[in-house]
Amino acid sequence: MAPSLEPFFKQVDDSSNDFIERLRKAVAIPSVSAQDENRPDVFRMGQFLADELTALGAEVEQRPLGKQPGKEHLELPPVVVARYGNDKNKRTILVYGHYDVQPALKEDGWATEPFELTIDEKDRMYGRGSTDDKGPVLGWLNVIDAHRKAGIEFPVNLLCCFEGMEEYGSEGLDDFIEAESKKYFKDTDAVCISDNYWLGTEKPCLTYGLRGCNYYSISISGPAQDLHSGVFGGSAHEPMTDLVNVLSKLVDPQGNILIPGLMDLVAPLTEEEKTLYGNISYTMDNLHESLGAETGIHPTKERTLMARWRYPSLSIHGVEGAYSAPGAKTVIPAKVIGKFSIRTVPNMESEDVNKLVFDHIKAEFAKLNSKNTLDVWLQHDGKWWVASPKHWNFSAASKAVQQVFGVEPDMTREGGSIPVTLTFEQATGKNVLLLPMGSSTDAAHSVNEKLDKRNYIEGTKLLGAYLHYVAEEPQSS
Amino acid sequence: MAPSLEPFFKQVDDSSNDFIERLRKAVAIPSVSAQDENRPDVFRMGQFLADELTALGAEVEQRPLGKQPGKEHLELPPVVVARYGNDKNKRTILVYGHYDVQPALKEDGWATEPFELTIDEKDRMYGRGSTDDKGPVLGWLNVIDAHRKAGIEFPVNLLCCFEGMEEYGSEGLDDFIEAESKKYFKDTDAVCISDNYWLGTEKPCLTYGLRGCNYYSISISGPAQDLHSGVFGGSAHEPMTDLVNVLSKLVDPQGNILIPGLMDLVAPLTEEEKTLYGNISYTMDNLHESLGAETGIHPTKERTLMARWRYPSLSIHGVEGAYSAPGAKTVIPAKVIGKFSIRTVPNMESEDVNKLVFDHIKAEFAKLNSKNTLDVWLQHDGKWWVASPKHWNFSAASKAVQQVFGVEPDMTREGGSIPVTLTFEQATGKNVLLLPMGSSTDAAHSVNEKLDKRNYIEGTKLLGAYLHYVAEEPQSS
Repeated sequence: MAPSLEPFFKQVDDSSNDFIERLRKAVAIPSVSAQDENRPDVFRMGQFLADELTALGAEVEQRPLGKQPGKEHLELPPVVVARYGNDKNKRTILVYGHYDVQPALKEDGWATEPFELTIDEKDRMYGRGSTDDKGPVLGWLNVIDAHRKAGIEFPVNLLCCFEGMEEYGSEGLDDFIEAESKKYFKDTDAVCISDNYWLGTEKPCLTYGLRGCNYYSISISGPAQDLHSGVFGGSAHEPMTDLVNVLSKLVDPQGNILIPGLMDLVAPLTEEEKTLYGNISYTMDNLHESLGAETGIHPTKERTLMARWRYPSLSIHGVEGAYSAPGAKTVIPAKVIGKFSIRTVPNMESEDVNKLVFDHIKAEFAKLNSKNTLDVWLQHDGKWWVASPKHWNFSAASKAVQQVFGVEPDMTREGGSIPVTLTFEQATGKNVLLLPMGSSTDAAHSVNEKLDKRNYIEGTKLLGAYLHYVAEEPQSS
Repeated sequence: MAPSLEPFFKQVDDSSNDFIERLRKAVAIPSVSAQDENRPDVFRMGQFLADELTALGAEVEQRPLGKQPGKEHLELPPVVVARYGNDKNKRTILVYGHYDVQPALKEDGWATEPFELTIDEKDRMYGRGSTDDKGPVLGWLNVIDAHRKAGIEFPVNLLCCFEGMEEYGSEGLDDFIEAESKKYFKDTDAVCISDNYWLGTEKPCLTYGLRGCNYYSISISGPAQDLHSGVFGGSAHEPMTDLVNVLSKLVDPQGNILIPGLMDLVAPLTEEEKTLYGNISYTMDNLHESLGAETGIHPTKERTLMARWRYPSLSIHGVEGAYSAPGAKTVIPAKVIGKFSIRTVPNMESEDVNKLVFDHIKAEFAKLNSKNTLDVWLQHDGKWWVASPKHWNFSAASKAVQQVFGVEPDMTREGGSIPVTLTFEQATGKNVLLLPMGSSTDAAHSVNEKLDKRNYIEGTKLLGAYLHYVAEEPQSS
C-alpha cells in the first residue's frame, strides 16, 4: 500500500457520516436542468458546490455560459471550475462531473421522496442524483476533505470541471472545454470522469471505450395528403408499404446488419482481444435480469459483450407520420419518416458509414418500383471512443481498485455514448479514464435512483487512492 | 316522362329559393355529434327536422336511444322517424339520412363561416353539412313540399329514418333498425340511402357495392421495458426489427397482397363484368387530381376502378409503441403494435380471411427465429355489400337520372364502407340503393364543404322522380 493511504482510508471511514450529510444536502436541491422552473435550483446547486470547494481551500470560479439557445429567457447554469493545488512537481488531473439531475416526482412511482436522501436497512441511499452524478462529484470533494482532516499531503494538482446541463444535452460545454483546453485546463496530464456504472454489482470496472452513434431518417412520401384506405387502397402506392420494405432490409432479427460493406469497416477481432471477454465478471443471467426477459440474441457472455462493445448494431426506433395511437384508424399516411441508428465502433468513419447507408437504402427503394419519393439523411452523429487501457492513468486506477476492493477491475467498454469523453480527449490531447462509482442496479434516470453506501464510501477511497497511484506511476506511452 | 313529373319539376324550380332557405336554416344549427358541448344543437336539429316534417303533413316521432355508452351524462340524439302516406296500394320506400355533422372551425382553414350557408358566384353553397348529409335529407322534405304545393299525388308511402350520430359511429342505430324492422319499417319494399357522392362532378351514379374492412393488430414484445439502444443494441432481439419484417410480408409495393390463399377467396372476374368498367365516367386525371400526385399503381382507369371496387387491398396504417415524434430518440421499444387492414370484397368471409391472415403472420414470424413474442388479432370487421343493380329499385333510379340529367347513370361500387347499408339490407331483407346527391368535389369532412346548387335542386328532382318511377316499375327478382 502507498504509505499515506492507510490514514486516508481511516479518515474516510471516520468522516463517512459527514460525507453522507454532504450528499443529503446536495440531493435536497432539485437541480433539474430540463425543467425551466427548476433553473434557480440548478444555480443553487452550483453555488453549493462552489461554497464547499472554497471551504476546502480550492480556488473556485463559476463560469457563465450565456443564454440557453432557443430559450433566451433562461440563463445557462455555470460551469463550476476549481483548482486544488498548484505544484509544478505534481501531475495535474482534470476531473469531470455534473451537478444537474433528471426530473423526478414521487408520483412517478418513487417509494420515497426523490429529493430527500433516504437510507434503507441495506444501506441503499435513495434519492434523485445520488448516483448520477452528485455522489461521484462529492466523492472528489470528500477526497480533499479527508486529506485536509488527516493532514496528508495531496498527491496531485486537481482541476475540477462540474457542469449543470448534462441531462439536457450539455448545452455550451463543448465550446467551453475547447476554449479552456489551452487556458484553465492547460496543465492537464490526464482526465478522469466518474459518470458511468459498474457492469454488475460486485466488481468495479475501468472503462476505456464507448460506441459512437449515427442517427438516420428515411422519409417516403406520395400523395399530397393522407388518404382514406377504403377509397384509395389498392390503386395508389402507399408510403408505409415502401417504408416497412426498406426498413426490413437494414438488419435481420439476429442483429446482423444487412448493409453491404458496413462490417468491412469494423476493426478485426484479434486473438489477444478475444481472450479479454472471458475474464469479465458478467453472466447471461445479468443480461436477462436487465432485459427482464430471456430475449438475448447470443448464447454466451463473450459474444454478448462483443456485440455490445466492439461490434456495430442497428436499431429501428420508430415511424413519424403514421398512425401511432391506440385504437383503429383507416388512414393511408401521405408521408412517413422511419428513424434508425447505427452504433459505431473502430474503425468506422462516419462519412464511410453514411455513404454505404445511403447507397443501400436508395438501391433497395429502387427495387420496389414505387412511384413514391424517398429521401434519407443523417440526423446527427457522434464518434466512438477507445482509449489505451495500458496508459498510466488506467494502471493507477487499476491499482487503486485492487487496494480498495481487493480485486483486479474489469477493463470494460460500453455500448452507449458519453460524448464529453471524446471532447476532453480531443481538446486536451490527454488520456481519459472512465472510473465509475455506482453499480448496475442504481437506476440512474429511473424511479428509486440510489447509491449504495458502500459504493459511496469505498468509492471515495477509490478516487483518493487513484490520485495517489497516479502520482507514483511512471510515464507510459 | 311520367305524366306528373313535369309539374313536379316546375314546382321544384319555383320553390328553389325556399329550398335553399331550408338548407340555410339547417346549416346554421351546429349539430356536431362528436363534441359534447354541441349535443343540445344536435337535439335542436332533430327538432327542426321533426317540425318541418310535421308541417308537411307527415306523422313524426323522435325515438330516444338512451344514454351514450361511455359518456353516461350525455343523452343520445333521437332517431327522427316519419311516415308520409299509408296507402296499401302503393309501394313503401324507406329513406335514410343523418342530421349530425363533422366538427368545423373557421380557423381550420374555412374561407367562410362554416355554419353560415354562403353561396358564391358559381352557385357553390358552402357550409358544414351542406352535402353531408343535410342537403340530401332536406331533399326528401323538398320532394314532399313540391308535391303538396303543386297538388300532385305522392307516388309512394315514404318512411324516413334520420339519425343524429352518424359522424360518431352511429351509436345505437343498428339495434334500433333491427328492432323496428318488423315494426315501424315492416312495410318497407325497398331502401334508398343518399349519403355518398358521384364519382366525378358531371355524371350521376347509382352505387350498388361497398367493400368491407377487416382491421388487424400485430403486437411483438420482448424486454420488460424500453431499452437504451447503446447498451442493448446488438445483444437483444428487437421487437421493431421483427415487426417491420412481418409487415413487409403482407403486401408488395404494387399493392399485391402476399397472404397465401387470400386472392382465391375473391369472386372471379367475369367477361360481362369486365365490360362495365370501360363505360364508367372516370379518368386517370381524376385519380391524380384526388391524390394530388401521380402515384397511382395501375396504368388504366379500368384496372384502377377494379382495384378500388372489386379487389381487396391491404394498407399498413402505423405502429403503436414505437418512437413517433419528430426528432431523434435512441430507444429500443419494448412492445410495438402494427396496425393494418384489409378491404374485403365478394366472396371473402371474415373468418376465412382471419385464418389466412393469422396463419401467414405466425408462419412469417416463425421464420425470423426471434425470441420475442408475437400476437395478432382482429380489431373489428365489417362485411362488404353488393346489391343487385337489376332490381326495380335501381332501374327506377336509373330512369330518374335519365329524366333529370339526360344521361344514363354510372353504376358504381365504392372502396370504402357505409355500414348502415348492410344493416338495412339484413334487417329488412329488401334491396338497398345508394343514390348520391353531391359530387366528388364536395369536400365532405374537410374544410370548405359545399353542395352545388345544381346538385341540390336537380337532386331534389331526382329523388322525386325516383319515387315516381319506383311506383311504376314492375316487380323484379
